[in-house]
Amino acid sequence: MKPLIFQSDFGCADGAVCAMYGVATCVCSDLRVYDLTHDIPQYDIWEASYRLIQTVGYWPEGSVFVSVVDPGVGSTRRSIAVRTANGQYVITPDNGTLTHIKRMCGIQEARIIDEKVNRLPNSGDSYTFHGRDIYAYTGARLASGVIAFEQVGSVVDIESIVELPILEPALVNDQAQGTIDVLDVRFGSLWTNINQEMFHKLGVQFGSRVEVTISNEMRTLYKNIMVYAKSFADVNVGEPLLYINSLNCVAVAINQGSFSKAYNIGTGISWRISLRKAPRVVYE
Amino acid sequence: MKPLIFQSDFGCADGAVCAMYGVATCVCSDLRVYDLTHDIPQYDIWEASYRLIQTVGYWPEGSVFVSVVDPGVGSTRRSIAVRTANGQYVITPDNGTLTHIKRMCGIQEARIIDEKVNRLPNSGDSYTFHGRDIYAYTGARLASGVIAFEQVGSVVDIESIVELPILEPALVNDQAQGTIDVLDVRFGSLWTNINQEMFHKLGVQFGSRVEVTISNEMRTLYKNIMVYAKSFADVNVGEPLLYINSLNCVAVAINQGSFSKAYNIGTGISWRISLRKAPRVVYE
Amino acid sequence: MKPLIFQSDFGCADGAVCAMYGVATCVCSDLRVYDLTHDIPQYDIWEASYRLIQTVGYWPEGSVFVSVVDPGVGSTRRSIAVRTANGQYVITPDNGTLTHIKRMCGIQEARIIDEKVNRLPNSGDSYTFHGRDIYAYTGARLASGVIAFEQVGSVVDIESIVELPILEPALVNDQAQGTIDVLDVRFGSLWTNINQEMFHKLGVQFGSRVEVTISNEMRTLYKNIMVYAKSFADVNVGEPLLYINSLNCVAVAINQGSFSKAYNIGTGISWRISLRKAPRVVYE
Repeated sequence: MKPLIFQSDFGCADGAVCAMYGVATCVCSDLRVYDLTHDIPQYDIWEASYRLIQTVGYWPEGSVFVSVVDPGVGSTRRSIAVRTANGQYVITPDNGTLTHIKRMCGIQEARIIDEKVNRLPNSGDSYTFHGRDIYAYTGARLASGVIAFEQVGSVVDIESIVELPILEPALVNDQAQGTIDVLDVRFGSLWTNINQEMFHKLGVQFGSRVEVTISNEMRTLYKNIMVYAKSFADVNVGEPLLYINSLNCVAVAINQGSFSKAYNIGTGISWRISLRKAPRVVYE
Repeated sequence: MKPLIFQSDFGCADGAVCAMYGVATCVCSDLRVYDLTHDIPQYDIWEASYRLIQTVGYWPEGSVFVSVVDPGVGSTRRSIAVRTANGQYVITPDNGTLTHIKRMCGIQEARIIDEKVNRLPNSGDSYTFHGRDIYAYTGARLASGVIAFEQVGSVVDIESIVELPILEPALVNDQAQGTIDVLDVRFGSLWTNINQEMFHKLGVQFGSRVEVTISNEMRTLYKNIMVYAKSFADVNVGEPLLYINSLNCVAVAINQGSFSKAYNIGTGISWRISLRKAPRVVYE
Repeated sequence: MKPLIFQSDFGCADGAVCAMYGVATCVCSDLRVYDLTHDIPQYDIWEASYRLIQTVGYWPEGSVFVSVVDPGVGSTRRSIAVRTANGQYVITPDNGTLTHIKRMCGIQEARIIDEKVNRLPNSGDSYTFHGRDIYAYTGARLASGVIAFEQVGSVVDIESIVELPILEPALVNDQAQGTIDVLDVRFGSLWTNINQEMFHKLGVQFGSRVEVTISNEMRTLYKNIMVYAKSFADVNVGEPLLYINSLNCVAVAINQGSFSKAYNIGTGISWRISLRKAPRVVYE
């Protein structure tokens, strides 16, 4: 019996998520079912992909994630299940939801869901709620051991799994350049794709200063100097800081304020950030 | 041991739901407790009733639903527990919350809660939180087998259970006429009470076109022709469609848009929808 | 195996809470994990403290609460675990989150978390997410019996636990004077710190009338007479009432309206409320 974890863009205000829980409980009443989040912005596959990489590694081997952000429900997009390099499973429409897992964690094996077998009995007339009829049902059967991973369906080539475009971070001269991948929603912090290792090549120590430039298309929205802090408590309330976030990447925030609201910063690959050691200013 | 599922209009921002979970866990620490939703709009008994019919059937026989949308707490409204035709239980104030269950699923037996026995010990001074003191407590005792259904209280006449007014859908000449019962909250789709069987009598095939008219009181808010699609992916992004929803009723949506916001459509029995096969237009 | 209950100001829209659940599940896959709420307003330690006192007592002895509202993460604020007078545990930054528990329920024993032992393995480079790396991890180990309370860390003096300023309610002549502690969020009711016992000394009976005065700093925002009701159903829709809430304290509301929105009432110790038996008005 393994944990089953649901993610979607359904919200929790109606009965959709509860119907998925019910289907899982009918498969096996001993299952433990959990939520990643159901507040993914509608159709935002990128954010669904990011929330998976943010969490999957903290769960036990064998855990089964079911992610349903599915603008193409009813189209020819495939339904797949994968086993990650760390032994967790993710079941999802093959629409880019696996982008970060594939690149940052690694996929060991992928299978296409055989909907002739792995579909809630008597749900054949419903074409709009695969989250309930296929994904929750198959996830529950896999998590509870009713089926083995091999019984999900035939193997598919890992290379064929759909990926959203990503811009890799890079060191260019004395700058670390990356993109703003996602927001820490509640606190307005910006999470970049520049990891700790790359950042440390700039030779910045805790307490020293970094020049941060943020631009979107041709427009610069922010250019200023801030402290590289261990944590929020190292700077004053209202002061900006750069820190290493809980995924070991560079993040930018205002202590007890919202950086994203303060400067109207968004997320995605058109949102670029570059970092360099702040120049020393000498007054003579 | 059966699943216990809570619904309310309490929201999740304070401690009310957690107190209900605590009471249930004190009754039996092995209970599995789940949420339908706690975001029913305040005092909206109609929506509470609808969310029950949307989900109850997906849960195992013996599951116990506790629904607390209770504008009349402290009045003489009764507290009841019912067994549905499929063997699930619902515990709720008798204020119309069982409207859809009673009509669409069927109630096998109803009992009034005997509050002398089925009330959290030492809660007698509290008159405003029956969700915690009576409903969660009784639901947990029923789900865990501490009491049998017979021990909830005396049998009451099923006919006496309060129902909200409903307008039955009807075929009138070449039109299917119904009401807009509820929204798919996150996606802005309209869910009607016209079921698949009635709709199919219009002789409309997948891919052919339907004239949809929506009115409120005397005012027509929408009148246009759209495709009857299997799923969203059959139409362009931004295009309207008519489809059969996950409850096997007719629904109307805009692919990746919000139909309800686009045309200011609401829900309830004053919101009428009529469908007919679109006339063929011949240009000569 | 004891229940583990999480509270935070993280919201549920990203992966933070799910990562905490994952850490707990890795400690012990049989753990039952629940939520108090994750919608505490950001950095609002007062409300976190209040939500604990609102709920802790409804859970079984031995239950472990983990509360993470932590504006000082990474500062020198201590991380502590306490056993309440009723035998539940609370794990939290020592920043005032235990104010109400300490005063109203009582703390039996307090221990500082030894982070050398009680920290998620390999999380040493992360300084911003103690909720996951320290609190969820330690809470799960305590709830599952992997460690005993004694193994959390050394005993600390209960007197040293940080408390937010509180203004005790008082009877002054014929008035009960107190503060507005918190809102019943969804329904806009005001919850005061004047308990039932003190209120009853005013000699007000169900159905008789009370003069209610609400002020903030020097300004009076509300002064009017309302009924002392058993429950909302005792007054008309739209009518104000005074009642005893589910924590046995005096509350003020509008039946099916929002008192806090109607009169712009906030919470905290600058928001004062005083109650007295309404004078009899005699027309001659």
